[in-house]
Amino acid sequence: MSSKKLPDIEKDFAKWYQEVIAKAELADQAPVRGCFVIRPYGTMIWENIKAVLDKRIKETGHQNALFPLLIPQSFITKEAEHVEGFSPELAVVTHAGGKKLEEPLVVRPTSETMIHFMFAKWIKSWRDLPMKINQWANVIRWEMRPRAFIRTSEFFWQEGHTAHETAQEAEQEATMMLREYVNLVQDYLAIPVVHGMKSESEKFPGADKTFTFEAMMPDGKAVQMGTSHIISQNFAKAFGMTYQNREGQLAYPYLTSWGSTTRLVGALIMMHGDQKGLVLPPKIAPIQVVIVPIIKKDSDNSAVLNVADDLKNTLGEKFAVFLDDDDTKTPGAKFYKWELRGVPVRIEIGPRDLEEKKVVVADRLGEKIAVPLDDVASHIEKTLEAMQTKLFERAKQNLESNWKKAEKLAGFGKTLSKEGGFYQTGWCHNPECEKELKKFQAMTRCLLDEKTFEVCFNCEKPSKGDVLVAKSY
Amino acid sequence: MSSKKLPDIEKDFAKWYQEVIAKAELADQAPVRGCFVIRPYGTMIWENIKAVLDKRIKETGHQNALFPLLIPQSFITKEAEHVEGFSPELAVVTHAGGKKLEEPLVVRPTSETMIHFMFAKWIKSWRDLPMKINQWANVIRWEMRPRAFIRTSEFFWQEGHTAHETAQEAEQEATMMLREYVNLVQDYLAIPVVHGMKSESEKFPGADKTFTFEAMMPDGKAVQMGTSHIISQNFAKAFGMTYQNREGQLAYPYLTSWGSTTRLVGALIMMHGDQKGLVLPPKIAPIQVVIVPIIKKDSDNSAVLNVADDLKNTLGEKFAVFLDDDDTKTPGAKFYKWELRGVPVRIEIGPRDLEEKKVVVADRLGEKIAVPLDDVASHIEKTLEAMQTKLFERAKQNLESNWKKAEKLAGFGKTLSKEGGFYQTGWCHNPECEKELKKFQAMTRCLLDEKTFEVCFNCEKPSKGDVLVAKSY
Repeated sequence: MSSKKLPDIEKDFAKWYQEVIAKAELADQAPVRGCFVIRPYGTMIWENIKAVLDKRIKETGHQNALFPLLIPQSFITKEAEHVEGFSPELAVVTHAGGKKLEEPLVVRPTSETMIHFMFAKWIKSWRDLPMKINQWANVIRWEMRPRAFIRTSEFFWQEGHTAHETAQEAEQEATMMLREYVNLVQDYLAIPVVHGMKSESEKFPGADKTFTFEAMMPDGKAVQMGTSHIISQNFAKAFGMTYQNREGQLAYPYLTSWGSTTRLVGALIMMHGDQKGLVLPPKIAPIQVVIVPIIKKDSDNSAVLNVADDLKNTLGEKFAVFLDDDDTKTPGAKFYKWELRGVPVRIEIGPRDLEEKKVVVADRLGEKIAVPLDDVASHIEKTLEAMQTKLFERAKQNLESNWKKAEKLAGFGKTLSKEGGFYQTGWCHNPECEKELKKFQAMTRCLLDEKTFEVCFNCEKPSKGDVLVAKSY
Repeated sequence: MSSKKLPDIEKDFAKWYQEVIAKAELADQAPVRGCFVIRPYGTMIWENIKAVLDKRIKETGHQNALFPLLIPQSFITKEAEHVEGFSPELAVVTHAGGKKLEEPLVVRPTSETMIHFMFAKWIKSWRDLPMKINQWANVIRWEMRPRAFIRTSEFFWQEGHTAHETAQEAEQEATMMLREYVNLVQDYLAIPVVHGMKSESEKFPGADKTFTFEAMMPDGKAVQMGTSHIISQNFAKAFGMTYQNREGQLAYPYLTSWGSTTRLVGALIMMHGDQKGLVLPPKIAPIQVVIVPIIKKDSDNSAVLNVADDLKNTLGEKFAVFLDDDDTKTPGAKFYKWELRGVPVRIEIGPRDLEEKKVVVADRLGEKIAVPLDDVASHIEKTLEAMQTKLFERAKQNLESNWKKAEKLAGFGKTLSKEGGFYQTGWCHNPECEKELKKFQAMTRCLLDEKTFEVCFNCEKPSKGDVLVAKSY
């Protein structure tokens, strides 16, 4: 066992991240390159995120379906940009059923090609449109520099795929789903984000446009939280996806796709965690309230335990409550454990509290207060709400203090490289200028709808609009 | 398009099954051998089954986790029976990230080996036991004779894996989960089952004991609905899964695993369907009530549509309701569509009904009755309950009428081969006698806790107990 204390979060954020994941039992290294086991506590967080998003996906008119894991290799090569983008990351099945396959099968890195093949079968008339499908699935993109949740060879996600009669409808769909994602991460994960378009070189291989939403981690690096794409009609053409339009002519539909992944769990850990461990936003925490009875060995603890149990049942109707009545551990060890796991609120009940008909309520951000037993439920409700807001505000402050405006890369490059953060600057949209960012381990994160700067951050050409640049995970 | 009528369910059940799946848009052939796309309507059914089972899995003390899809080939070969059982069905990744892998990776056919590897890491002391994990996942077992839902190269399932201090606890776990499965399929899917142990030759490769639960389809073939295993301690030994027991000595835990799959959807289709299409048990139906307003082209339908909409909102609070107000289709076409899709109850509302303040309620089994508007909700509730019971009773009758007792294979073999059904008979437990069943396309399905027969169905040795034999999917 490694020592109980977490690495210094200020001095070695990367090490802290790795250790908090191990100690809070969120994930564990698997015996396959770049793969991780998501342990029960990590899975519960993902299931909570999934539940919120799945509900919204259905409410916005999409239906879930399940497509095959394996894709004929020839499918991937049908769209030139797509194959170029994904080839280096593919895992390939060459043998199955005891024989060499005639055509190798690729483990899906994403399902555009498979789903478009099926769309071509299903979409015959404009009456079949729009077609709005979502899939919850595992995908594989072989990873050379793995990091739990953030960058893994296998990951879990949802991928939405839709087809529409007009380019305008497709654009509406892609931006609507971007908005849904932004609401999810801001309202539930308490992570403020900036959203906008990716540059030509950073967009999805095969997309006309990619919308992204990006968060700023406390260490100054950006995380791409998810993306929503207008897919090139090349895909529709490659798969012969013709249908009869309202005018009776053959036409190709306009396509979108959009995805978000288990990476969200990684961003959640980084965004809110502190020296004691995880800090989970109440709306997404698997356990919102933990009750720790202050019991003593070789004493009659039944009065305390009875009240703790009653409280668990009462609060359990409104909140996700866990009663930690393990009598082999001290209250101190339990405080440590549940703080490490980021449980938003802890209730302590001891014999003296009982006499005074009160309990102690401690929130994960350090507030501690005695509350009359009768008021516990309403107090908890207020505490959870306040904590959700506080976490978002704190993260927003981090975003704002890490957001700088600067004119020339030559001026801000070194500081960006050292300290991180978002730099808002001007850009001529020339990919050669974009490449210069690499010298400072940075890249463009998203195009902004503003124009503060007259010239490009690199050359002397006019800026086409502001861009956000940063180092990233 | 193929003709609108389904193939004769009595004369060609296999063809009917294939067509009803296509026409009701449950699944579609994928462009990969043995794989199917599960379309939205099929996915909704699977999601409903998942939700019920997932709740019970959690309530019985298990936690979900996510393990890697790919397993090092050497893991599979660690347990001799396991590798022998699964080798012919494996899909193998030999290349990834643009390179040939040093060791091939197998796409999981089941996750015992991966999960046991992790258990060996996690289980150090008796305090870590029991460890009770479940995973919802996709698996691949290469399939030569695919059939949608019932037998597919890729399928979806949950696999539970647990470790215990004693053999007795492991047995309790395996039988508890068998009981949970039986409750699921009987109470929700309305499918009566028989349960018991598999014979030595039919058990899971690497299990000491396999418990199975089996259903009888209307065509006389059995379907294995799921299994629960006591896993051989060979696995614990192969993965060095030692822990310190209560006596301070090193010991190996006792293991179980148990799984149920998307095959349940296939059994559901076969069990209850009729000449008009699917018949879905109300407790698992994605749409429980469809409202069809009887509207006419070029008329003012607003009164009818308003009442239909109100009804949708009222009923929607208690039931899964769909209002089919598509004005391009006739009521008749809608009746056909929703009968094909097995919606338990249809409500018809026309202008004349409105005058009389009533609606027509038709259930999927053919009952049709006029109901005063004010009584609709309570009537629907009773109808759905009655239908759930009726479907189970009907299926139970099918099971009973297909269950025969007979002494000698020589006597019943030909009839079994022709007509199907369960045959209860005696068996000496010799695998050589069991092999004789193959001549009649039959096999042992499960051992029964009875002893009706004195001698084996094949030889003259004494029977060790009754066995159920049948043809199967």
